[in-house]
Amino acid sequence: MYDYLRDPAAIYAESFATIEREADFAGFDAALQAVATRIIHACGMPEILPDLSYHRDICTSAIAALRNGAPIFCDCEMVTHGIIRRFLPADNDVICTLNNSETVDIAAREKTTRSAAAIDLWLDRVENSVAVFGNAPTALFHLLEQIENGAPKPAAILAFPVGFVGAAESKQAMIDSRLDVPYITLRGRKGGSAMAAAALNALASLAGKSK
Amino acid sequence: MYDYLRDPAAIYAESFATIEREADFAGFDAALQAVATRIIHACGMPEILPDLSYHRDICTSAIAALRNGAPIFCDCEMVTHGIIRRFLPADNDVICTLNNSETVDIAAREKTTRSAAAIDLWLDRVENSVAVFGNAPTALFHLLEQIENGAPKPAAILAFPVGFVGAAESKQAMIDSRLDVPYITLRGRKGGSAMAAAALNALASLAGKSK
Repeated sequence: MYDYLRDPAAIYAESFATIEREADFAGFDAALQAVATRIIHACGMPEILPDLSYHRDICTSAIAALRNGAPIFCDCEMVTHGIIRRFLPADNDVICTLNNSETVDIAAREKTTRSAAAIDLWLDRVENSVAVFGNAPTALFHLLEQIENGAPKPAAILAFPVGFVGAAESKQAMIDSRLDVPYITLRGRKGGSAMAAAALNALASLAGKSK
Repeated sequence: MYDYLRDPAAIYAESFATIEREADFAGFDAALQAVATRIIHACGMPEILPDLSYHRDICTSAIAALRNGAPIFCDCEMVTHGIIRRFLPADNDVICTLNNSETVDIAAREKTTRSAAAIDLWLDRVENSVAVFGNAPTALFHLLEQIENGAPKPAAILAFPVGFVGAAESKQAMIDSRLDVPYITLRGRKGGSAMAAAALNALASLAGKSK
């Protein structure tokens, strides 16, 4: 037998205590600290905190939208499966259109990725939704383009595209845009579906708690 | 319109070229380099390479098992949804027992996590399987315990538990064990379902290619 912590509550408590000890949350309000803590918890890296970038209204806007029953759009299946359903305050729909049959056709016609094409299938319900990106830079770029082209705005963008081509650039483009959509993101190459789902789970948990 | 790469093949090529430029694969054979490249691709971090640890037989053992139709056991749903099914060389079963109804009862009886309890439901078919961990240190610890207690051995362990409590320790325990089960792992706190699925996808792709 190995000697290790087996009690789920104790494991969470020790994890969160370690994060609080190692990360400097000066300037974070309680809600934002809860979100950042969950993101760090998902990746094991307190050192990412200085690269977290956020709009001042991200927590209030996302929490209000989730309480109002906003659908949650995800760029990939892994994000949808990282979302803890019992945290959702209004049994919110969790939607990924990447594998819809229309997506392949749109991608071929628009000469882009399936990830970007999938965004076009969000547009009917994207207004005041929560948009979550855990994989695809082209998907985030395309949502920004569609909003600039007049598409309705989501209530919040949780932007964690990852990798070597376009991830840093798409997130920076969102930060630099004048779209005034509340967001949280991690600058640079790091990201992924676990961080994206963790951000959503933290916001959903906050939305449920003080309702 | 933003200026970004939209062609999926070009995005992959540029990603893999960046990884080859930035990571030092000296001492890696071709198969292992392909696996390490996919893991780095999933997280955007070439700097993890020195922390990758592996058994000399990991690629040959995992590839043979996958070709032989080995089931793939995953510690969490996110890993199962990161596995690219068309890469699997023998339409291999992808199994996650975390949400089985028996798992809750076993966890209560054994006073452990659901993640660890879920391992007990692998044991009937674990021999020569591929075991993939993208989340739970307690699950990896418990598989090691069960093998030490006489349970059959998987053909390969892809070990990427993540976080602050037990992740580094469980992976080090596996490395230090005398179980002689081929493995690949990332030492330390970093890991996650994306890296775990990426390792499996790389091995499955190799198993399919030269068949």
